[in-house]
Amino acid sequence: MALMHLTIIPLGTGSPSMGEYVADIQKALEKSGRPYTLTDMGTTVEGPSKELLALAAQLSEMPFSKGVHRVVTQISLDDRRDKGVELGDKIASVADRLKHDNKG
Amino acid sequence: MALMHLTIIPLGTGSPSMGEYVADIQKALEKSGRPYTLTDMGTTVEGPSKELLALAAQLSEMPFSKGVHRVVTQISLDDRRDKGVELGDKIASVADRLKHDNKG
Amino acid sequence: MALMHLTIIPLGTGSPSMGEYVADIQKALEKSGRPYTLTDMGTTVEGPSKELLALAAQLSEMPFSKGVHRVVTQISLDDRRDKGVELGDKIASVADRLKHDNKG
Amino acid sequence: MALMHLTIIPLGTGSPSMGEYVADIQKALEKSGRPYTLTDMGTTVEGPSKELLALAAQLSEMPFSKGVHRVVTQISLDDRRDKGVELGDKIASVADRLKHDNKG
Repeated sequence: MALMHLTIIPLGTGSPSMGEYVADIQKALEKSGRPYTLTDMGTTVEGPSKELLALAAQLSEMPFSKGVHRVVTQISLDDRRDKGVELGDKIASVADRLKHDNKG
Repeated sequence: MALMHLTIIPLGTGSPSMGEYVADIQKALEKSGRPYTLTDMGTTVEGPSKELLALAAQLSEMPFSKGVHRVVTQISLDDRRDKGVELGDKIASVADRLKHDNKG
Repeated sequence: MALMHLTIIPLGTGSPSMGEYVADIQKALEKSGRPYTLTDMGTTVEGPSKELLALAAQLSEMPFSKGVHRVVTQISLDDRRDKGVELGDKIASVADRLKHDNKG
Repeated sequence: MALMHLTIIPLGTGSPSMGEYVADIQKALEKSGRPYTLTDMGTTVEGPSKELLALAAQLSEMPFSKGVHRVVTQISLDDRRDKGVELGDKIASVADRLKHDNKG
């Protein structure tokens, strides 16, 4: 299982705000049924790599339907196969490690 | 004010796990006094761009002191000057927008 | 048409070198028939977004077949629809602009 | 020595084109004296990590002086200490590896 961090940036919109496009993407993610988290700098989604990248293709298409002419998409994909990885795992693992270090 | 999303990847460690290095970075961030959030795919820190990038330089240096020979650092910096931006603002703004859309 | 910049990072290999994996990816790109350029920090490929991301999924799968347990993939996708974009266009356009600026 | 891949994206400019800002950055890089290469998806610069990130801070400041209100900067930093790394090295190394593979 993999985690994908995704940022979709519409260019030339005339406004520095991206909230409208981010909200559209959240709605599409909700429909997709995949576990996801909105962060301050993008959205993290959980799933198999191939399906995550197909989802990224679909989401990065959305601003074009609103008249945007150029979209930059940043994707970071972390695919680990020696053990299961789910949203929240890494945060819990680091918190646990910090707790032990402080005890030691 | 800007937000920086940071991922530091030590290469050639012989283990697919990065938890040890992530914990070191959390401790250094705690000492830095800057507001930050650990996410599933990196850490987001708040501050002026110049200081955030100086902090990134300092943090990406850390794995070398543990014998790592190569470190890849991914940084995404979002600097907005027409209004203040703080950690959590974007998430709150999108949540608010979705609530209004559902009402409409 | 879009351009995709792709970096595939195998983790936990025990060596800081990635040349072997980069060479594998070049061979697969050669077979794909898509125009591409190897840069110092990854590979840039030209094509429609959906097909580029499907190609990224296929390429990021390759290190797993060599026993790697974790692969981090960084993708930057630049999709422009108001005019055609091809490999080399941006470099030529900036060079042209600099020449005119120097003349002015 | 490290290599930094840098993409600076001005938001809300009203135009999907970024050529003007890219040309400004090239001029500033020329003055910096650091070795650099313009690629289709950004600029790669060579130097010590700390100085490269200070340079990134300076370059990402430039669009604000032209009235832009929001700038997104993407940085990928590859710092290797077990051997020297210079612009062009990786491309030469992979080309060499492919030549040997074809001979074998």
